[in-house]
Amino acid sequence: MSEHSYRLIISCPDRVGLVAAVSTFLAQEGGLLTEANYYCDPESNWFFMRQVIAADSLPYDAEELCARFAPLAEQYQMQWRLTDTGTPKRVVLMASKQAHCLSDLLYRWRSKEMQFDIPCVISNHDDLRSYVNWHNIPYHHTPVDPDNKAQHFGEVEQLIEQSQADVIVLARYMQILPPALCARYPGQIINIHHSFLPAFVGAKPYHQAAERGVKLIGATCHYVTSDLDAGPIIEQDVVRISHHDSIPDLVRKGKDVEKTVLAKGLRYHLEDRVLLHGNKTIVFE
Amino acid sequence: MSEHSYRLIISCPDRVGLVAAVSTFLAQEGGLLTEANYYCDPESNWFFMRQVIAADSLPYDAEELCARFAPLAEQYQMQWRLTDTGTPKRVVLMASKQAHCLSDLLYRWRSKEMQFDIPCVISNHDDLRSYVNWHNIPYHHTPVDPDNKAQHFGEVEQLIEQSQADVIVLARYMQILPPALCARYPGQIINIHHSFLPAFVGAKPYHQAAERGVKLIGATCHYVTSDLDAGPIIEQDVVRISHHDSIPDLVRKGKDVEKTVLAKGLRYHLEDRVLLHGNKTIVFE
Amino acid sequence: MSEHSYRLIISCPDRVGLVAAVSTFLAQEGGLLTEANYYCDPESNWFFMRQVIAADSLPYDAEELCARFAPLAEQYQMQWRLTDTGTPKRVVLMASKQAHCLSDLLYRWRSKEMQFDIPCVISNHDDLRSYVNWHNIPYHHTPVDPDNKAQHFGEVEQLIEQSQADVIVLARYMQILPPALCARYPGQIINIHHSFLPAFVGAKPYHQAAERGVKLIGATCHYVTSDLDAGPIIEQDVVRISHHDSIPDLVRKGKDVEKTVLAKGLRYHLEDRVLLHGNKTIVFE
Amino acid sequence: MSEHSYRLIISCPDRVGLVAAVSTFLAQEGGLLTEANYYCDPESNWFFMRQVIAADSLPYDAEELCARFAPLAEQYQMQWRLTDTGTPKRVVLMASKQAHCLSDLLYRWRSKEMQFDIPCVISNHDDLRSYVNWHNIPYHHTPVDPDNKAQHFGEVEQLIEQSQADVIVLARYMQILPPALCARYPGQIINIHHSFLPAFVGAKPYHQAAERGVKLIGATCHYVTSDLDAGPIIEQDVVRISHHDSIPDLVRKGKDVEKTVLAKGLRYHLEDRVLLHGNKTIVFE
Repeated sequence: MSEHSYRLIISCPDRVGLVAAVSTFLAQEGGLLTEANYYCDPESNWFFMRQVIAADSLPYDAEELCARFAPLAEQYQMQWRLTDTGTPKRVVLMASKQAHCLSDLLYRWRSKEMQFDIPCVISNHDDLRSYVNWHNIPYHHTPVDPDNKAQHFGEVEQLIEQSQADVIVLARYMQILPPALCARYPGQIINIHHSFLPAFVGAKPYHQAAERGVKLIGATCHYVTSDLDAGPIIEQDVVRISHHDSIPDLVRKGKDVEKTVLAKGLRYHLEDRVLLHGNKTIVFE
Repeated sequence: MSEHSYRLIISCPDRVGLVAAVSTFLAQEGGLLTEANYYCDPESNWFFMRQVIAADSLPYDAEELCARFAPLAEQYQMQWRLTDTGTPKRVVLMASKQAHCLSDLLYRWRSKEMQFDIPCVISNHDDLRSYVNWHNIPYHHTPVDPDNKAQHFGEVEQLIEQSQADVIVLARYMQILPPALCARYPGQIINIHHSFLPAFVGAKPYHQAAERGVKLIGATCHYVTSDLDAGPIIEQDVVRISHHDSIPDLVRKGKDVEKTVLAKGLRYHLEDRVLLHGNKTIVFE
Repeated sequence: MSEHSYRLIISCPDRVGLVAAVSTFLAQEGGLLTEANYYCDPESNWFFMRQVIAADSLPYDAEELCARFAPLAEQYQMQWRLTDTGTPKRVVLMASKQAHCLSDLLYRWRSKEMQFDIPCVISNHDDLRSYVNWHNIPYHHTPVDPDNKAQHFGEVEQLIEQSQADVIVLARYMQILPPALCARYPGQIINIHHSFLPAFVGAKPYHQAAERGVKLIGATCHYVTSDLDAGPIIEQDVVRISHHDSIPDLVRKGKDVEKTVLAKGLRYHLEDRVLLHGNKTIVFE
Repeated sequence: MSEHSYRLIISCPDRVGLVAAVSTFLAQEGGLLTEANYYCDPESNWFFMRQVIAADSLPYDAEELCARFAPLAEQYQMQWRLTDTGTPKRVVLMASKQAHCLSDLLYRWRSKEMQFDIPCVISNHDDLRSYVNWHNIPYHHTPVDPDNKAQHFGEVEQLIEQSQADVIVLARYMQILPPALCARYPGQIINIHHSFLPAFVGAKPYHQAAERGVKLIGATCHYVTSDLDAGPIIEQDVVRISHHDSIPDLVRKGKDVEKTVLAKGLRYHLEDRVLLHGNKTIVFE
């Protein structure tokens, strides 16, 4: 886990000889594979690969590896990227008043359970400032004026840009992002929705769940698109409830699922395990 | 489990002294409680009780117990019923072509894992006749003419009536019951829907699930009302899927959940553990 | 949840009329029941009750309720206690270096998700001091000298005594408590063991699990007795693993289960939902 | 799923270029990969592969493919095998009196949910004969004389041999196989144990579980070795129980887990997804 490696993420049309071409290239360069995942979607005939290469098995750096790989990638019409585990992703956390997801991610960050940098936390409330500051992380409070949301989102966009974020996590940030912001960071904004989507889209899902009388409630971690609660799903889970559970009980039990599901989804994303395929995801667990 | 007992099921407005009144009545009669469940819904202030009394602790029979209890029931405006575990419920099973739920229930019946009688199996196809007949259970094949469904449902209604059914189980019977039939057996028709309701109502839920890219699929056991897939939910469960799973894989994995959830829901119903409360259920597990 | 109530916890030999006697007493005093759970163990014929009474339905206080109830309790040879939700339990947290369980409980405490007081945190290491202090909770560091553990445990015992603890939680505190300390706080010391007991007792359970090649790992929350890892179990859960998971992966995945299971077990205890019955527990969820 | 394909299963020492060598070989032959799984155990540095090749992408048959692959296999010191999905494995089912696992597997067989042949069922009791015969499957009843178990196992061994079994499934067959029989079919005898191993080895695990007061019970599907209940684990799962559950309840709830876990484990085996690695398994789900 802690050793320096490269992750080569590829998607392209399937063809006989594809795995052979990529693995032969890597073998000729001397690259030692430590993980390899392949999936071909039978409907679209589209191929997805994730390969992890021990960095010290190669005599040169990531840039050189990219340069050498580029001709092959072009030949096979690949969409591809190479990431370096030595360069942690920069994750901007956005929250509102509720602390459960934010606290959970901060724990995983400070205990080094998950590898990422946090340039800042952005919130439309000031409640969590002291807790975030204890971690020596900058906290930006940009209130939302219901009559002028544009100002808030202008500030948010600027803060994200300044922080050079790779990922934006909506850790129970309760505002709907404007379409332009969603479009600017495709596949980079991760949300946790407090229901088992597509059940109970929109506001107050726990109230909806209580109303319908379901026996399980859930949470969904997904990429944000301009289509509310309809982006590609990364991870989901549920927890059992009963008639004994009041709405506050649902909220409480749901929080435990929300934070676990968000952490799992973010981990998959940070480790480049999630490949987009239309409105679905390939997750190489 | 195997000893003869009475189940006293009550729902009524909550009041101080309610449990005292019922339990004092039972104690004065000498009744030994072997199980007791209580729940008060805080919103409606409605009280629900299920009490199991060892039959041989009473010097008289069920009829006499009902007669003695009736004045108290009236005083507290109770909706109530008394069932006798010595009289198994009569369960009509309805199926189509798929055998997984039917086979599962027949196993539980013939192994005496669950206590109920099966007066007959009704199906719109003839496929499962030989298997059902091996169990010495009558099999009624009533085909569905798409241009005259009324005839099919007329036959079905007559068969149900003749069988003196207490419960009708739609064990993946793929037809929508007419409203009149639903209305005639309120809280007595149990269906298994192959999705985690309210997600994916209607036809082909596994196709819908694949389309949406969910990471869990589920099944829902519910009472049938004239409002399709919207009746009170008794039990639900889910199973994890991944991008590897094709639609046939979803169908296969889903079957295991469907049969388990249906068996659980039916067991709760047969043991009088399910109390209706509007469109929700109280399930005294 | 937030309203003031009394919890009456009873265990005694079963007898016809027991529920009637208790509920009639409560009804005569005017007590409004908001929750009631009963269980009779069929083997030992021992009866267990938990009843929650709205405090403002009674014209007097907890002390008076106890005084009035005492004769009945004596008549039925009850072991009983009455707790008042207005008096939060005092919980001493003990930890070592790992922060996951401690952080999780501190979050639940500061967000008021769970109601309890924390007089202090005790640790054999100083690592978590700053984090605990941010919460304005006293932190006592008492190192362990392997050649003189008695000194450490003497200090621990004194700190617990001074803090007037109702509960001691071993939140991944990695030392084995001496028998005398266990005996002094029976049913009051709660531990989280990082395996699905009774599998993998003792040290390094994740290494044992990897060695055996299990497909699920788990955690167990139990009361501490002088018999290591053998005390009454309050709660357990598991998580799926695969051949891909190295021992550090097991440790990481296990941490999520440990903290959830500990929080659940502690919640049950704080809400007086756990009744001891020999080496087993009745948990009125 | 239904198309004819070859599965190439390989384990060997890891080396740079291994995946390249195999995939280049397959590409040169024109073989189209439909599934590919790789795993390198970091401790032993041992590499495991499972590759599925569409049969009709090759201009020759399985025998020819093996002949062409053999030199490469030798060069890399591979343990390998090639299976053909067109040749279903022959599975002998062994049972005793309890029908839940047997019924479940027979359902999956007759509904073609799982692809395998059943040359016969062997049992030490005659109870299940009629049910098995309905499926047109031969049923062999060989009683066990406690004073002469050797005779029983002699008959069993002969029946297995005559049936040309690839796999023997102990579907709650309650006898311990003699070491010689275990040794004769290594990695081919699959058992379902009714506990979450290594907890509760040996007899009456549900009684042991009740005694210990666990909150979850489980089942374990594993390969049989001469070391009782200690063979390589293929699959496990658990189900939640409570103090309400008597031992018959544990048995009943456990049965549902047993049959699901056995069916999953057998499916993995039949699809050549399970690779042995010492006393552990690699399962390419």
